[in-house]
Amino acid sequence: MSTAPARGCLSIVGMGPGDPELLTLKAARILRESPVAAWFARHDRTGHAREIAGDLLSADVIALRFAYPFTVEIPVSDPRYPARMAEFYDRCAEDIAAHLDAGRNVALLCEGDPFLFGSAMYVFDRLHGRFRCDIVPGITGMAGCWSQAQVPMVHGDDVLCVIPATLDEDSLCGWLERANAAVIMKLGRNMAKVRDALRRTGRDGRAVYVERATQAQQRCMPLADAGERAPYFSIILVPGRTGVR
Amino acid sequence: MSTAPARGCLSIVGMGPGDPELLTLKAARILRESPVAAWFARHDRTGHAREIAGDLLSADVIALRFAYPFTVEIPVSDPRYPARMAEFYDRCAEDIAAHLDAGRNVALLCEGDPFLFGSAMYVFDRLHGRFRCDIVPGITGMAGCWSQAQVPMVHGDDVLCVIPATLDEDSLCGWLERANAAVIMKLGRNMAKVRDALRRTGRDGRAVYVERATQAQQRCMPLADAGERAPYFSIILVPGRTGVR
Repeated sequence: MSTAPARGCLSIVGMGPGDPELLTLKAARILRESPVAAWFARHDRTGHAREIAGDLLSADVIALRFAYPFTVEIPVSDPRYPARMAEFYDRCAEDIAAHLDAGRNVALLCEGDPFLFGSAMYVFDRLHGRFRCDIVPGITGMAGCWSQAQVPMVHGDDVLCVIPATLDEDSLCGWLERANAAVIMKLGRNMAKVRDALRRTGRDGRAVYVERATQAQQRCMPLADAGERAPYFSIILVPGRTGVR
Repeated sequence: MSTAPARGCLSIVGMGPGDPELLTLKAARILRESPVAAWFARHDRTGHAREIAGDLLSADVIALRFAYPFTVEIPVSDPRYPARMAEFYDRCAEDIAAHLDAGRNVALLCEGDPFLFGSAMYVFDRLHGRFRCDIVPGITGMAGCWSQAQVPMVHGDDVLCVIPATLDEDSLCGWLERANAAVIMKLGRNMAKVRDALRRTGRDGRAVYVERATQAQQRCMPLADAGERAPYFSIILVPGRTGVR
């Protein structure tokens, strides 16, 4: 009589902002132990999460590289966008499920922290009812930025707002008027709009621009000195109240 | 002719939410290498940051344990509060400066992430003009909570608000009405007020209560099942929009 193998565990592993030394001890252990490693990548790239993992993955690891069907070619507002992304995540989830069903543990590698704007959430949503999951938190991109920029962000009863730059300009202004401290993410093509919103709300003076924090190509400067173009994963920091120390 | 020793570097090290395996590789390396380790503690406790460090610190490390002069005995609104805390941080900074001046590197250990509501910010403010500083980001308490609770927090253009429970009830309601996702920190004595604010804004249904995340005594449940009392460092999570995946 044969016995079905015990099902594998899905570890969703936060990989941090880029410096491999900012992996947690737990993340490093899971990467070394996992027989299967999965990650997302732009179709023409290796994938940032895979690069951070470096040679922590064993030489005979089973690699599942999930190439996004598109990145900016189809706008989010186009009905084909959610439909095709849902299909893509369905397929990723099934590829991972096959290994878990065969009793193999899988590590799904995610830039930053998995549950803060991470694609891994879509896989988690599809699989957590069927398989054991372990979520390994990661150093967030924003913490990478404020550490490198040496900008203390919030103290006392400051409220911190984490705001995607994809919002329209009036919404951005609404948040920037109220927030004590703000982190503006997903800059990319939204740089000019964000700059206008910061100016309109008088929050541009202390704003700091950071790109590729903790990586070799890191750049970090007052917003006034930053250019008009920014990579998608760059961030603007607006620190909270000062002078109350 | 004698030469002054090179000045030491102050590493401000994020220690994460409690599980020692959630230290970063960089934090672990710095703890092992530092001749001097400093941390804050309640007067009658060892200090959480010191406990997380465990035996990563070398046996002959010079230990600077900074015991807070008070915790909740003097209210923040009392003028003696900022005055006596400022004196305390002045003394901590000078104790650290003496070692840096003597050429010894110092690791200042901080729960969570140093620049997100951390006492280390007050030491940084006093010393960063005089000494080289390296800020090592840590896994935040909130990421520890949402990972353990397995609650994906934000996706797409959700705005996340990190809100101290010390605000008055109307301010809490104002934030909870607008936020797509919210993390409410510093619960402690503010639990009843926060519960009322969540109810008034209709945000109580999906709220999750987490205490001592990633530690042995961790508790995690729907807010409705949580008691009336909470430790200061417990957190309530209100996840962002769902059903758009």
